Amino acid sequence: MKFSPLISELITAFTSLPGVGKKSAQRMAFHLLERNRSGALQLSQALHDAMEHVKHCQACRTFTESAVCEICADPSREESAQLCVVESPQDVLSIEQTSEFKGRYFVLMGHLSPIDGIGPSEIGLTELNTLLDSGKFKEVILATNPTVEGEATAHYIAQMCNDKQLSATRLAHGMPVGGELEYVDGNTLIHAFTGRRSI
Amino acid sequence: MKFSPLISELITAFTSLPGVGKKSAQRMAFHLLERNRSGALQLSQALHDAMEHVKHCQACRTFTESAVCEICADPSREESAQLCVVESPQDVLSIEQTSEFKGRYFVLMGHLSPIDGIGPSEIGLTELNTLLDSGKFKEVILATNPTVEGEATAHYIAQMCNDKQLSATRLAHGMPVGGELEYVDGNTLIHAFTGRRSI
Repeated sequence: MKFSPLISELITAFTSLPGVGKKSAQRMAFHLLERNRSGALQLSQALHDAMEHVKHCQACRTFTESAVCEICADPSREESAQLCVVESPQDVLSIEQTSEFKGRYFVLMGHLSPIDGIGPSEIGLTELNTLLDSGKFKEVILATNPTVEGEATAHYIAQMCNDKQLSATRLAHGMPVGGELEYVDGNTLIHAFTGRRSI
Repeated sequence: MKFSPLISELITAFTSLPGVGKKSAQRMAFHLLERNRSGALQLSQALHDAMEHVKHCQACRTFTESAVCEICADPSREESAQLCVVESPQDVLSIEQTSEFKGRYFVLMGHLSPIDGIGPSEIGLTELNTLLDSGKFKEVILATNPTVEGEATAHYIAQMCNDKQLSATRLAHGMPVGGELEYVDGNTLIHAFTGRRSI
């Protein structure tokens, strides 16, 4: 015995979400059917609208339904000579929440990963190249994740910048603020020692 | 800074799912936008179809898009004199997977919970009353969950059955098969002792 066709389809569709298995999918489907049909219809509409209309920003490649995203369209950032390169739109949000950086972004939408067939053109380095050639930027801040792939991507882009005589900087590695020495991994500690500064 | 309006709406809509917070919702939204737009459109369609067409079975109250569900429509179960009362459609699936029970079901879609305003009419006891009055059934198997609310609901329905001179039975409580005595809770152990059988 199975659930009726429409319910089975809904459960299968939910399992396409990351981190959702069969049991969670069942729970979601019955929760919506029993308690929140209007919420479910809203979700259906939101999914449809987002998938139909959200494209990449023409300037920085982040997701947006406009031709150019809010940050790229901001005139106060237009003159900035700093370009921050990140892996994902969520990274842009994290940096924006600090209110520290006032320049422009470039979102790779991934990182170099030859084993998965992700090369320079898949992460928009052709567009980045054109952007750097425009002569607007003096400094490229490489804010890819401190993982093996993130570091490789940063080095690749740093090389591009050096070829164009542009300054490329990398976010500092070291002790997280509020962290305890005892619990920090060895690699981070090595970076913290290497990058020590006089006070 | 926030994500663009359509993306924000999608993230908010995902948080209406049970067990999904803001971060998981973001992850789901970006996963679908980046990697599985066709899956997202399927989910949108499945949600819409299910919410529009899935109603309650006229006989047993489970969810189905037909007037009567697959089990109630099965002619081989038509003559059964056993009615199994469960709390949710998922419970029907669990019992059906054992292939042990060949009778009909009645799905309460919840349990009595006066504190939440859920009384007898909210869990379909009026319909159950009519069904029992039809004289088709000789035994009512109470398979509500062994929780405080489930037990209370079972006792309430048992009383209804007694008033109609119908036999009401409750699923056995005891040691789960494959379980270890050491790890079974005290209450279950008490039930297992009380319900011991000669071998």
